[in-house]
Amino acid sequence: MPRFALKIEYHGAPFAGWQRQKEQPSVQQAVEQALRKLDPSVDTIAAAGRTDAGVHGLAQVAHCDMVRDWDPFRLSEALNHHLKPAPVAILAAARVADDWHARFSATERRYMFRLLARRAPVTHDAGLVWQVKQPLDRAAMQAGADRLIGHHDFTTFRSTICQADSPMKTLDELRVEEIARPDAVEYRFHVRARSFLHNQVRSFVGTLERVGAGAWTPDDVTAALNARNRAACGPVCPPQGLYLAGVGYKDDPFAP
Amino acid sequence: MPRFALKIEYHGAPFAGWQRQKEQPSVQQAVEQALRKLDPSVDTIAAAGRTDAGVHGLAQVAHCDMVRDWDPFRLSEALNHHLKPAPVAILAAARVADDWHARFSATERRYMFRLLARRAPVTHDAGLVWQVKQPLDRAAMQAGADRLIGHHDFTTFRSTICQADSPMKTLDELRVEEIARPDAVEYRFHVRARSFLHNQVRSFVGTLERVGAGAWTPDDVTAALNARNRAACGPVCPPQGLYLAGVGYKDDPFAP
Repeated sequence: MPRFALKIEYHGAPFAGWQRQKEQPSVQQAVEQALRKLDPSVDTIAAAGRTDAGVHGLAQVAHCDMVRDWDPFRLSEALNHHLKPAPVAILAAARVADDWHARFSATERRYMFRLLARRAPVTHDAGLVWQVKQPLDRAAMQAGADRLIGHHDFTTFRSTICQADSPMKTLDELRVEEIARPDAVEYRFHVRARSFLHNQVRSFVGTLERVGAGAWTPDDVTAALNARNRAACGPVCPPQGLYLAGVGYKDDPFAP
Repeated sequence: MPRFALKIEYHGAPFAGWQRQKEQPSVQQAVEQALRKLDPSVDTIAAAGRTDAGVHGLAQVAHCDMVRDWDPFRLSEALNHHLKPAPVAILAAARVADDWHARFSATERRYMFRLLARRAPVTHDAGLVWQVKQPLDRAAMQAGADRLIGHHDFTTFRSTICQADSPMKTLDELRVEEIARPDAVEYRFHVRARSFLHNQVRSFVGTLERVGAGAWTPDDVTAALNARNRAACGPVCPPQGLYLAGVGYKDDPFAP
């Protein structure tokens, strides 16, 4: 059966996360239901990253096997038709090799986190950012972030329910961007690695926010990392600012 | 009684517009209710621009008279507390002269319109943009927009229920910005004038979209303007891409 890769955008708010769960709506279920409208034989689909409840997708990648050899553009259009009115959109579809796997073929995951600093409550950005009241020190946050780059035991920044075999991971990028807005300052954290532990990005951002607020120093970040102890982590920040921003493959299946 | 100017941000979706209406939620009513929690004597408040149902505010300006001489920062914080959970935020408050008027003292209104071109349905931007499926020709839209700048009879671009005394207005700016996004092209229309006719911005954008799609030429825009006839207007575009972006005063009451 021909295999297709799907690039998927979604709003995390109405879902209990990517992964299918009993009696709770999931993004996976929404996409599988749309696929079965086109092809009742479609089995469970696999995705590159399992996002938690409330976490958004900008370019999640999944794959599926279909009976028919669909034209990829028509497949994406048909799926978008059947996905309505769920806030899930197929940005692209592509024919891939039969042994290509959205999760196991991935060589890189990219996350983005939006942190908005302002006094007044958010209106248009509600559910799309984590809000704090006071501006933060971007340079201090970057200095703290720099302590986390590289190959480390990230036990401190790993959820206690994380199922990964090892806490050893290589963090390739953790860049803190500052964007001046008319009535706020936005900080965007750009995070990149081959793979992540459960809650790793939210543990990083929650900890670095403490550095930006002056409560922690960059040395405290190093000490937390070296503690290899979940209790040494800063507060884990909420999910609604987190976006799965992209997935890397040796050959991008969606390249034009 | 001391008079205060309020800078107000809001999401237009849950409201029947700015203006108070019988049995329909309005932004004006939400702000007045919050004000009366602080001061039961507060009367009807006046705003610089009446936005329609679904139209957003980034920096609407209104004024109110209070019994107490509030510290402006504390006033904005107290109002934001009482406005929850409505998507309305007081960005700033300022003490103004007793004869200062949010509407009559205004010398300029600025609107912004977000038009997003992409095939896939919008998810995070739902309710915040007008979506079309195909990319548009920005330069052609700007050429059409240039025909509208200046002092004109704008009868063509005026709702039939517009209550302004005269269709003569001076359009100071209509700039079309193109923003490349990973999976879409966004066009932002920046529009500035002393005052506007009812539905004028949405009539402009709906007409210019036709130019961007190649269905109209810039000369057709000139012909439509010269017709001074509502029937000559292009399709009026929907409200959810429109933002009241700012109000100008001779002396900015919110200047630091």
